[in-house]
Amino acid sequence: MNKDKEKTGSAVRIIPLGGLEQIGMNITAVEYEDSIIVIDCGLSFPDDDMLGIDLVIPDVSYLVENIDKVKGFVITHGHEDHIGALPYILKQINVPIYATRLTMGLIENKLEEHELMESVRRKVVRFGQSINLGQFRIEFIKTNHSIVDAAALAIYSPAGTIVHTGDFKVDYTPVYGDAIDLQRFAEIGHKGVLAMMCDSTNAERPGFTPSEKSVGSTFDNIFAEHTDKRIIIATFASNVDRVQQIINSAYRHGRKVVVEGRSMVNIIEAAQKLNCINIPENTLIPIENMKDYPSQKMTIITTGSQGESMAALSRMASDMHKKISITPHDIIIFSSHPIPGNEKPVTKIINALLGKGAEVIFQDAHVSGHACQEEIKLLYTIVRPQYAIPVHGEYKHLKAQAHLVEELGIPKDNIFILSSGDVLELSKDAAAVKGKVHVGDVLVDGLGVGDIGNAVLRDRQQLSENGIMVVVVALDEATGTLVSGPEIVTRGFIYVKESDELMEEMTQLMSDVVLDLVDRSVTDCGKIKSTMRDSLSEYIWKKMNRRPMIQPVILKV
Amino acid sequence: MNKDKEKTGSAVRIIPLGGLEQIGMNITAVEYEDSIIVIDCGLSFPDDDMLGIDLVIPDVSYLVENIDKVKGFVITHGHEDHIGALPYILKQINVPIYATRLTMGLIENKLEEHELMESVRRKVVRFGQSINLGQFRIEFIKTNHSIVDAAALAIYSPAGTIVHTGDFKVDYTPVYGDAIDLQRFAEIGHKGVLAMMCDSTNAERPGFTPSEKSVGSTFDNIFAEHTDKRIIIATFASNVDRVQQIINSAYRHGRKVVVEGRSMVNIIEAAQKLNCINIPENTLIPIENMKDYPSQKMTIITTGSQGESMAALSRMASDMHKKISITPHDIIIFSSHPIPGNEKPVTKIINALLGKGAEVIFQDAHVSGHACQEEIKLLYTIVRPQYAIPVHGEYKHLKAQAHLVEELGIPKDNIFILSSGDVLELSKDAAAVKGKVHVGDVLVDGLGVGDIGNAVLRDRQQLSENGIMVVVVALDEATGTLVSGPEIVTRGFIYVKESDELMEEMTQLMSDVVLDLVDRSVTDCGKIKSTMRDSLSEYIWKKMNRRPMIQPVILKV
Repeated sequence: MNKDKEKTGSAVRIIPLGGLEQIGMNITAVEYEDSIIVIDCGLSFPDDDMLGIDLVIPDVSYLVENIDKVKGFVITHGHEDHIGALPYILKQINVPIYATRLTMGLIENKLEEHELMESVRRKVVRFGQSINLGQFRIEFIKTNHSIVDAAALAIYSPAGTIVHTGDFKVDYTPVYGDAIDLQRFAEIGHKGVLAMMCDSTNAERPGFTPSEKSVGSTFDNIFAEHTDKRIIIATFASNVDRVQQIINSAYRHGRKVVVEGRSMVNIIEAAQKLNCINIPENTLIPIENMKDYPSQKMTIITTGSQGESMAALSRMASDMHKKISITPHDIIIFSSHPIPGNEKPVTKIINALLGKGAEVIFQDAHVSGHACQEEIKLLYTIVRPQYAIPVHGEYKHLKAQAHLVEELGIPKDNIFILSSGDVLELSKDAAAVKGKVHVGDVLVDGLGVGDIGNAVLRDRQQLSENGIMVVVVALDEATGTLVSGPEIVTRGFIYVKESDELMEEMTQLMSDVVLDLVDRSVTDCGKIKSTMRDSLSEYIWKKMNRRPMIQPVILKV
Repeated sequence: MNKDKEKTGSAVRIIPLGGLEQIGMNITAVEYEDSIIVIDCGLSFPDDDMLGIDLVIPDVSYLVENIDKVKGFVITHGHEDHIGALPYILKQINVPIYATRLTMGLIENKLEEHELMESVRRKVVRFGQSINLGQFRIEFIKTNHSIVDAAALAIYSPAGTIVHTGDFKVDYTPVYGDAIDLQRFAEIGHKGVLAMMCDSTNAERPGFTPSEKSVGSTFDNIFAEHTDKRIIIATFASNVDRVQQIINSAYRHGRKVVVEGRSMVNIIEAAQKLNCINIPENTLIPIENMKDYPSQKMTIITTGSQGESMAALSRMASDMHKKISITPHDIIIFSSHPIPGNEKPVTKIINALLGKGAEVIFQDAHVSGHACQEEIKLLYTIVRPQYAIPVHGEYKHLKAQAHLVEELGIPKDNIFILSSGDVLELSKDAAAVKGKVHVGDVLVDGLGVGDIGNAVLRDRQQLSENGIMVVVVALDEATGTLVSGPEIVTRGFIYVKESDELMEEMTQLMSDVVLDLVDRSVTDCGKIKSTMRDSLSEYIWKKMNRRPMIQPVILKV
């Protein structure tokens, strides 16, 4: 194919549209002349200061403006930070999706929910297979990760080959399927790779991430040691291999398995349909049948390992689960590490479980899905890209990978730590960030996408800290005199029933202020409102050192 | 003294009034017949769901009801979780305070701020000295901790001796003052100890906490290696020994020192007054004079090591500090570990600092102030109490200490994991939790103490997630007809300027609802309001899947 041949002329452009200021919201455009392909389309979860926001998706104005060029989405794997924004973004740019089997299965779950199955074209790609999209050819390469069917991408453009690792680790003994296709990486590397975008999540960690299989032996040991207890294991819903290993151990020890938590049930169903998980007959039982078996013959696999307040484990810990109560005959295993920011809620659940007399195992029953330093070095060494682009991580992770790569001998000037929106132009002869496209967070709250901005968030912040006071007065439209009120309504500020005196004082103050304005024939509503606001605000600050939001309302009668 | 002699008869009662459901808010009453002494009086910082709350103090109803018995506060050390509630509680129960020198210095800072210096009696106690309070004698014993002048207490009662370790570690080579007085613990243990209440913070950690001095050599190495950079070190304001060691290293390397952050400046001033810190002449300089020295001759010691958003380091990282800008010539050392829950804000600051090209050292420049397992075992072994009461920790820490203590041979029935409010009755012959006293969190918001309860917090929660809509109508008092409105005001819900259509639809809906009610001669305000609320709520849920707070207001004209 001619397209694979490199020609002099245009450069290829790498444009991350998200994912470089945080972990989450991964989406990168790769552009060559009239062709754009988009790698991944993930969401991120709201920061602590995004009050009331359900999730965050990328602003894809750049793709919308260049819709004629956009040939399709190529998706590396089925985690939310790589596929979660698809149903929202597809409503803006409906182009085909290319992904491996389980990844597509999980995408289709989302499309169904958003009623997009009919309108979105999609194609399942096998490992080793290539697809042609405009001036690009894209090959899907087998990798290992904490979800089955994860892929790296080799993107062949006339300006050279770009390798995107996706999220990966090197697992020589994976639970399901093959080890990462190091031979193919080496082969592509041997032919010459212009640039590699590589997962940085664990770039600060020395050594090698252990095989997923090592967790299996840990489970076997725990099962062997606790034959007298019910075993409850919390893990990530999407880690099908982990679930497989728990089921294996349970089966070997003659236990039944219940799966609890909606997201986990959904993913296991998808995995079963695609034969990505192998469950021995009569092992999985419905939660309703638990009572038919002695508790020491039961294993429960559950969501909530991150301390999510509405997940199954959290409900068990706080006695709010309808079907499972924690007792001293339970042992709970956290097969997970807390994602940064979740340490406190996880600890809260552990304390609650211990308080019910249960035993809790929090160590050693988890391995990461991301490459540590030795794996990153391995991949760079066999791919030998001309340019290195650390991706997938906070700044400190990207920086750590940049240090590693420099040690491997890639010149500092050939290493690019990008920001979202940067346009990196690459060719054999030169590489530089040339310009910036518009990027940003689009906030999703309920059915509203992008209708909440900073002004609303600032209001929510103030409301959350201090509450609101609404002061309503009715003025005569003709004469401007006060005909009713002031009526004060307050929420989130004080407990009104126990604050009669304060409420009276404030009403009196507002009455005095309005009557004084009326006396002085002030009729401008803006002026009246701001005077009311300022006087009440000052009064409350002096009296209580608080700053509730104050909202005057004037009705003209 | 006769009081020290044990007599048969009454039991001594240990009543924790806080501190056992979390780390923070330490306060424990010890009661014998007509005498109560109170150990510590700390605050805790608000949980994530206590929106807008500044701090939390214990409900001391039990002390107020028994005010005639309460002889005084005995304070173990000057951290906020042990002294922070004093100014608030002293306004309810004004009894004398007993503490060591620096501890009292820090308490006095608080009393001055609250204008309580005149009205509160206080006495500085030396290590080894005893005080008599009612039927108790209390001896202050030297320990080591991450603040100078920390004490354990031996509480001699007619029913036996209780040892309270305070927060402690065993530091054989402390920076300031002596090592923990192990001889005295042994001596008291030899005479017979009824019960020991012991710090559990690090009970999950094996081994021995390193000496504070080990951090000093780390600093020396860092200073020796980075002679070309400005060195900025963030640590806890109250760790005077840490500050001392930084100053020592700076002095040895010919650097000047600036201290930045209000709380740190205050504590160092208090420590200087009491000669707890030794600053060589011409080493500490005012921040204004920094410009007179080359940056590689400067050291800045700053607050903000926990990622606190308003602290000095955070302001430096986000370019909001008026006098200090971060450059690639800076190296920033975190001489701290993030307290659980602070991991994310700390990481955010690290990323921001790295983003400015600065170097960041996050490891190895900190040691804990709390005893690890070997130290806990050491103390139990020399004190040999009849009963063990793990304190100061989350449930998992208390449980971990209980396991340790059991291994040492103390029978399980003699180990008590208490909850706040439990009344533990102890005598040589028997020990049991007998009853419970009222305890709780009192929330402080601005100048208001205890005026914010669950109803207000629930309102703040809803406001923070969804905002508020206020719908105002004016009805004729006589006829009930609509004379003005509906006027809709909304905050934290949608951006009004971009939602004309929605606002019009909602106004129309409210108008229809009210007119319909008027038509049907409904005049009951409660009925009108609830109908308005329900219709609008349903409309918004259907349209947007959101649930803003809806607050109708009816003015009668």
